[in-house]
Amino acid sequence: MPRRSRRTGEVRADREREVGHYARLDHDRGRRVGVPEIVLAEGKTVEHLLGIVRSLREDGRGGFVSRPTAAQRRALRSLPAGGPRLEFLAGDRLVRVPGPLGLHYRDGTVAVLAAGTSDVPIAEEARALLQGLGIRVVHAYDVGVAGLHRLLRALARLERARPETYLVFAGREGALPTVVAGLVQAPVVGVPTSFGYGRGGRGEAALAAMLQSCAPIAVVNIDAAVPAALFAAQRLAVPGPRPRRLRP
Amino acid sequence: MPRRSRRTGEVRADREREVGHYARLDHDRGRRVGVPEIVLAEGKTVEHLLGIVRSLREDGRGGFVSRPTAAQRRALRSLPAGGPRLEFLAGDRLVRVPGPLGLHYRDGTVAVLAAGTSDVPIAEEARALLQGLGIRVVHAYDVGVAGLHRLLRALARLERARPETYLVFAGREGALPTVVAGLVQAPVVGVPTSFGYGRGGRGEAALAAMLQSCAPIAVVNIDAAVPAALFAAQRLAVPGPRPRRLRP
Amino acid sequence: MPRRSRRTGEVRADREREVGHYARLDHDRGRRVGVPEIVLAEGKTVEHLLGIVRSLREDGRGGFVSRPTAAQRRALRSLPAGGPRLEFLAGDRLVRVPGPLGLHYRDGTVAVLAAGTSDVPIAEEARALLQGLGIRVVHAYDVGVAGLHRLLRALARLERARPETYLVFAGREGALPTVVAGLVQAPVVGVPTSFGYGRGGRGEAALAAMLQSCAPIAVVNIDAAVPAALFAAQRLAVPGPRPRRLRP
Amino acid sequence: MPRRSRRTGEVRADREREVGHYARLDHDRGRRVGVPEIVLAEGKTVEHLLGIVRSLREDGRGGFVSRPTAAQRRALRSLPAGGPRLEFLAGDRLVRVPGPLGLHYRDGTVAVLAAGTSDVPIAEEARALLQGLGIRVVHAYDVGVAGLHRLLRALARLERARPETYLVFAGREGALPTVVAGLVQAPVVGVPTSFGYGRGGRGEAALAAMLQSCAPIAVVNIDAAVPAALFAAQRLAVPGPRPRRLRP
Amino acid sequence: MPRRSRRTGEVRADREREVGHYARLDHDRGRRVGVPEIVLAEGKTVEHLLGIVRSLREDGRGGFVSRPTAAQRRALRSLPAGGPRLEFLAGDRLVRVPGPLGLHYRDGTVAVLAAGTSDVPIAEEARALLQGLGIRVVHAYDVGVAGLHRLLRALARLERARPETYLVFAGREGALPTVVAGLVQAPVVGVPTSFGYGRGGRGEAALAAMLQSCAPIAVVNIDAAVPAALFAAQRLAVPGPRPRRLRP
Amino acid sequence: MPRRSRRTGEVRADREREVGHYARLDHDRGRRVGVPEIVLAEGKTVEHLLGIVRSLREDGRGGFVSRPTAAQRRALRSLPAGGPRLEFLAGDRLVRVPGPLGLHYRDGTVAVLAAGTSDVPIAEEARALLQGLGIRVVHAYDVGVAGLHRLLRALARLERARPETYLVFAGREGALPTVVAGLVQAPVVGVPTSFGYGRGGRGEAALAAMLQSCAPIAVVNIDAAVPAALFAAQRLAVPGPRPRRLRP
Amino acid sequence: MPRRSRRTGEVRADREREVGHYARLDHDRGRRVGVPEIVLAEGKTVEHLLGIVRSLREDGRGGFVSRPTAAQRRALRSLPAGGPRLEFLAGDRLVRVPGPLGLHYRDGTVAVLAAGTSDVPIAEEARALLQGLGIRVVHAYDVGVAGLHRLLRALARLERARPETYLVFAGREGALPTVVAGLVQAPVVGVPTSFGYGRGGRGEAALAAMLQSCAPIAVVNIDAAVPAALFAAQRLAVPGPRPRRLRP
Amino acid sequence: MPRRSRRTGEVRADREREVGHYARLDHDRGRRVGVPEIVLAEGKTVEHLLGIVRSLREDGRGGFVSRPTAAQRRALRSLPAGGPRLEFLAGDRLVRVPGPLGLHYRDGTVAVLAAGTSDVPIAEEARALLQGLGIRVVHAYDVGVAGLHRLLRALARLERARPETYLVFAGREGALPTVVAGLVQAPVVGVPTSFGYGRGGRGEAALAAMLQSCAPIAVVNIDAAVPAALFAAQRLAVPGPRPRRLRP
Repeated sequence: MPRRSRRTGEVRADREREVGHYARLDHDRGRRVGVPEIVLAEGKTVEHLLGIVRSLREDGRGGFVSRPTAAQRRALRSLPAGGPRLEFLAGDRLVRVPGPLGLHYRDGTVAVLAAGTSDVPIAEEARALLQGLGIRVVHAYDVGVAGLHRLLRALARLERARPETYLVFAGREGALPTVVAGLVQAPVVGVPTSFGYGRGGRGEAALAAMLQSCAPIAVVNIDAAVPAALFAAQRLAVPGPRPRRLRP
Repeated sequence: MPRRSRRTGEVRADREREVGHYARLDHDRGRRVGVPEIVLAEGKTVEHLLGIVRSLREDGRGGFVSRPTAAQRRALRSLPAGGPRLEFLAGDRLVRVPGPLGLHYRDGTVAVLAAGTSDVPIAEEARALLQGLGIRVVHAYDVGVAGLHRLLRALARLERARPETYLVFAGREGALPTVVAGLVQAPVVGVPTSFGYGRGGRGEAALAAMLQSCAPIAVVNIDAAVPAALFAAQRLAVPGPRPRRLRP
Repeated sequence: MPRRSRRTGEVRADREREVGHYARLDHDRGRRVGVPEIVLAEGKTVEHLLGIVRSLREDGRGGFVSRPTAAQRRALRSLPAGGPRLEFLAGDRLVRVPGPLGLHYRDGTVAVLAAGTSDVPIAEEARALLQGLGIRVVHAYDVGVAGLHRLLRALARLERARPETYLVFAGREGALPTVVAGLVQAPVVGVPTSFGYGRGGRGEAALAAMLQSCAPIAVVNIDAAVPAALFAAQRLAVPGPRPRRLRP
Repeated sequence: MPRRSRRTGEVRADREREVGHYARLDHDRGRRVGVPEIVLAEGKTVEHLLGIVRSLREDGRGGFVSRPTAAQRRALRSLPAGGPRLEFLAGDRLVRVPGPLGLHYRDGTVAVLAAGTSDVPIAEEARALLQGLGIRVVHAYDVGVAGLHRLLRALARLERARPETYLVFAGREGALPTVVAGLVQAPVVGVPTSFGYGRGGRGEAALAAMLQSCAPIAVVNIDAAVPAALFAAQRLAVPGPRPRRLRP
Repeated sequence: MPRRSRRTGEVRADREREVGHYARLDHDRGRRVGVPEIVLAEGKTVEHLLGIVRSLREDGRGGFVSRPTAAQRRALRSLPAGGPRLEFLAGDRLVRVPGPLGLHYRDGTVAVLAAGTSDVPIAEEARALLQGLGIRVVHAYDVGVAGLHRLLRALARLERARPETYLVFAGREGALPTVVAGLVQAPVVGVPTSFGYGRGGRGEAALAAMLQSCAPIAVVNIDAAVPAALFAAQRLAVPGPRPRRLRP
Repeated sequence: MPRRSRRTGEVRADREREVGHYARLDHDRGRRVGVPEIVLAEGKTVEHLLGIVRSLREDGRGGFVSRPTAAQRRALRSLPAGGPRLEFLAGDRLVRVPGPLGLHYRDGTVAVLAAGTSDVPIAEEARALLQGLGIRVVHAYDVGVAGLHRLLRALARLERARPETYLVFAGREGALPTVVAGLVQAPVVGVPTSFGYGRGGRGEAALAAMLQSCAPIAVVNIDAAVPAALFAAQRLAVPGPRPRRLRP
Repeated sequence: MPRRSRRTGEVRADREREVGHYARLDHDRGRRVGVPEIVLAEGKTVEHLLGIVRSLREDGRGGFVSRPTAAQRRALRSLPAGGPRLEFLAGDRLVRVPGPLGLHYRDGTVAVLAAGTSDVPIAEEARALLQGLGIRVVHAYDVGVAGLHRLLRALARLERARPETYLVFAGREGALPTVVAGLVQAPVVGVPTSFGYGRGGRGEAALAAMLQSCAPIAVVNIDAAVPAALFAAQRLAVPGPRPRRLRP
Repeated sequence: MPRRSRRTGEVRADREREVGHYARLDHDRGRRVGVPEIVLAEGKTVEHLLGIVRSLREDGRGGFVSRPTAAQRRALRSLPAGGPRLEFLAGDRLVRVPGPLGLHYRDGTVAVLAAGTSDVPIAEEARALLQGLGIRVVHAYDVGVAGLHRLLRALARLERARPETYLVFAGREGALPTVVAGLVQAPVVGVPTSFGYGRGGRGEAALAAMLQSCAPIAVVNIDAAVPAALFAAQRLAVPGPRPRRLRP
């Protein structure tokens, strides 16, 4: 429970939990910035990742692990049972550590589109995270711009849900977010995926195209499904009591 | 005035105004996607730009021209007086063509930050556009991360206005949006500016750093002040009657 | 007049015209490969360019000069009058040296599209060249993908001319050729233009996007209007007598 | 069977077949744009690819799968026998799903050249696809520019077939399409291959060289054998009844 | 023992030890430039690496091996026991060959910071090397800029040790060295790590951001923990007798 | 004069001076981080730059302006005389605003080397700044690696001054810092200059070569003479009373 | 045996040997351009490579195979014994097919230098090829510029052999060829190797540095040991009877 | 006159001439490495360049200045007459300072080819330098690969002079050196020129293509006419008495 300062009524913003000498969990992040604890597994040693997840469970806190490697998933699956059971989502690309996240979100809908079948696994990562946060998601996949009728039909359906943000995933030439932004009223966030080959492959062409879009979209990095989902979620976050600010 | 279909009650979305053989103004864009008519002057011939602005004035419609060159500004200034007077804003980087924009915005505040003095002219472009749309803006400039106390003091002031979006402009190493996103609850959009030199200059380092941010921010292209402002504005757009959709 | 070999009936393919020590005009190119003499002015000294154009006129042959600089245009305009008058086309981006080209083309139509007003000058370069070759052109400009209704209406008109090739010019995110290729039966050649700014500007994003297109389009280099027009024209070339081949 | 509108006589262009929630087959693409159903396997999950192929077979439609991975090939080979037998072509780089493609092609020949032995597997992918579409192919391999006599001898043979398009595959320095385009009358499409090493390897030098060609060739992405083949095929497509257009 | 010239009193600087025909150990480097013998294992054959380490042991000299591969580690571990025992440090990323290094360092402290948990293994490489040289190290890990309170608390602790140099490791957006350099008086060396993904991943964004820093920091290459540690150590090196210089 | 806290004896670190709405001078930087006020003129409007310099003079504080453009220099030269006279140094690349800098440096020498004559103007910028800070500089220019005898002779002279840091400027192939680092005991900071042409020109090759150096050097950005000089100076800074830290 | 034309006395230059449909051996290359048959194995299928080697042996001709993969080496080793025995050289990076090469070389020496131990395997590839051609080689390895005394001692030895060309291999910062070219009279060819890491790794920095060299060296691609050796060998080639030229 | 050591008979190699504090002329370079004094004007201040040329004239030595800017040329032309008259060659791209160069060359021929008219000015720079050194040059211009008959005819002529080296200049796709290297026996050095546009323009495509050449050519940097000429000249240099070496 956050301590409240007697003098100012502010809540201390800076509770941190040290894990070994290699990690410091930021337990007030949710309240402070409207974003839950999400651990990017990619690049961490198995030992460090396990230590972090164990700490979360010991503290009775919830969170997410994104993009675990096969070795990391095996280790996570062999954690002793004495705590909430980890949930493996979106084809194992996202792991949920059940428990209180320290923040909540108001009603609202996010739309998730994927240009091609190859973009689906990345898009699912965002959809699973948003649903894990309790946010409503509508979606349509394989609606790329080389077959416009598929897209128009899908948008007609999605628009009925009046989404507050569109997350549009596309690899290759990355044109979908631009086309969508010319047809809907809500802000569009483009997520380039690493699908593609040759020059501009690995998402470089899609990212460049989205940055050059002649429609006013915003963009995240290649395959950055989780940051995109959090950006959309933040708009729906219900602010808690303001944490005490750093003193300038 | 938009024609309304007798059969469906929908409004036709596709009124276009042809200018010479080189331009087609999209007169329903405002109603359709919550974004006004904005003409990027950069890259257009003086003749084409003048033709477009004349059309807007003839039709009694408002809009904006961004980034006119010196030659284009001279031509715009010499337009005959028989219409609303063009307004030159943000150090002449933005020109307002007064008139109805075909859309409006609900109450709400956008925060604009600039990391250094060199980023100010770009940031002012966004601020002028948002104010031109009738949206409230709070701002703080020269609050870069190498002197944190300046930033913390400024944020304390801005947060009191409870902005719905932060637009954070930074060149050089582009760290400011990440630091801000760790301190505020509203979504942060990073705008890399072309300030910098040597490797990663011209905004490349700032853009890359923002795309790699360890906080969930969204990004626009280098110096893309206008798209960033429109993205923030779209969130406040009040939808008109839905225009008739393209038939799939 | 090409010499015909008595032994094989073949025509010699290799007549060249030396100009100073710096140029060798390839007078059989038209007959050999279905492409006229086109001199790219960019990068040549004024003296060299003048020498080449003088040679063409002395030999009573026609051709084109593309992308003359201001200094080159002045020099070309001051050439003595004793020959066919040079024609300055497409906003002076193309110069026609009247005279026989040594090849001709069958009936057929090429469609030229430009995504935005800023792409028009480049597209006009291709249109002027094709018309200079006697090929029929249909065109539509400012039909970018952020306002699909404009595009669909234009395509309905263009398709009635049953074009054999589409040349589609687009800068920024370069999405137009992909969208067009999903709607028409003729082959689409994408021409990225150098319109754009920031990362992927100068046509890099558009080129990469076209190379990554999920539709089977072919591409030329940035702003390469003349090569694109020639590629489309070659399909309509009527082969002359086969020139004698190089002996392996 | 396409439905024909009673009012306009047009055929509906937009029949789609949904597969799971991850794919929408575009069953009228052949008729609409002259290109068959081709599924790029690369980047798709095994499960998604199998689902798509099963749908094609259930609907009694033909198509192609390009670049299956080893795992995907194993899965495709273990599909139950109750349908047309999949054909593995071009060293397993292309898989044919027998069945009607919904389009056909007029007589005509495409020439396929490969600069070196290492480019042969990519070139074979194009040759197999064109032959699978019923189009005549002539070819010559290992005819790179460092030994011109080999090339000249091969071209003499190929020219006798009067090909309508040349597809020229080259890695390393990518010079072959330029040299060929100086010797033949038909349009040349360059296909850079990923053969090469060090700076400019992976096809980057070849692609750049083809884009910079001093002959008017068009280009596709690195290793893009299938798009190149389709681009060449489209020229020979016999248009069906025009599908109903999207309504602007 | 270095030979001293009778005439000048200088010590010969150029004793080298040839190993096979593939290596020449520079036995006076320590005395000459204040840096010990460090063998970068990456890129060497197992045979060559073993030969070098054997030579060191035969000569009774100490040194370090950095970044051995798994195969190299196995080979090193199976070296016969007849010499000082190799020590495997920092998760096996650094191997110490015990023995005299031919140089020593005065008292002084170096601070090592790592922005995230994923940067820890690289930072540990520097810490282990510095400690192996007998230099005092203070450190703090997971103190990235998205949670400033963690950083400020850690700096308060580190500053009490009055470090002479800060080595600051950061991947992703690489902002930490800039923020630290705005808060401490000692010189800051930024070490970009290869942690990150998509555009600017593999450390490119972090490196570019550090080069663009608005604070006066110096930088080393991506993951260059050992060079950074040596650069910091050199400042503490106690010069031996000047070796004889190369004669100009 | 800094206020001293009665409770902790700490000095407040955060005095800022606002200039217009576009700049906030950080008056405690010198004391806090050992670096004086240096304004990078490049990228600032003339008006903003003048405002900042006027503020410095009004407050009776000293500082530097680096890389003023011709227009900025003219404006600075026309400032009214009622204050200390600006000094234009290093071929006008550096401007000194006389006055107290709020910090001082202990005795010590920095060595400045330039590989070629073309690198001299950049190196002079560093030399002028260091001398402006009261630090002793020894230097040698045009001592590139293609004529080693020149370098060896110069180093023999410089070493006698026992410099604490070497700043080594080199364009083209950037080899000089590596060679120097193999010959001297003090730390070497490489400064790539923008001298060069073709591939790797504009300093890119020199920067890359210095980052890849097989000697443990540190690096700054291309032409970053001022940051390099400050980095070297910081080592000689005499810490004032510790400013009050930001409260975590 | 080359056929000699009765009319001109010239020898036909264009004998080719077709292997399957995938390769055409250029049996007159040696006589025509002074370079033997060398097959780059990298990128070829095992089947194609075997076919080529079998053809060479059937025709009783010699040649080389460079950079076979493990699978290719296994296949080559299992070729039936009924012909000259393949020789595996330079750590299996080069394979010699014994037999007449169709060219010979005059007396002359080539010097091979390698900057570091990691560059040795690449340098050995060149040394083995040159020796296989009967050319004398002198060499020195691990003579990088961070320890100049090692280099100077080695050069003193190599110069005594009066080499006609220096091949200088270096990765990392690639400075060695520049330094050598300032000390010797023979032309220097720089060979960047792929040794290095981080920015500019994989040989990119070394290549760029060599292209920017302030000494007049020539360069080949990264790791291009075989082309470098052939370039040096060509200078020593004794021309045979001029082959008949292609007829213009 | 070089001093000769009494003890060893060697000539001192290291005479340097200091010019101001910004340049050190290397007066023994010619004798030491077979290359004359050549000053790259690009990047030097007018004052520095003049100082160097004045020194050369005062010392009665010859040399060359390459690529003077317009301002530098004006300054050079206004030098007082009291010395040998400067000669402006190759369209003013090269300036000869008459006087002894300190080296001479044996008989021998270099061939210079340029692919297009735009490459001629760069090629002329090399031709003028070689002729200035007294070396025989044969040349052919505008012989690009898109019209092979022109090239074959030119090569037939050039080969009669039995050149020892070919310098082949090409921009755009850079294919000419590869084609030439397949037809002649002498070594080929490719010189990419900056002619071209769009992706791979400014010589990048030509350079990459030459580095990837399937023939064993060597390469210099973009537009590096002078280094290429010196590399070819060095082969013809007649060594003087060996200068005294640096003592290891």
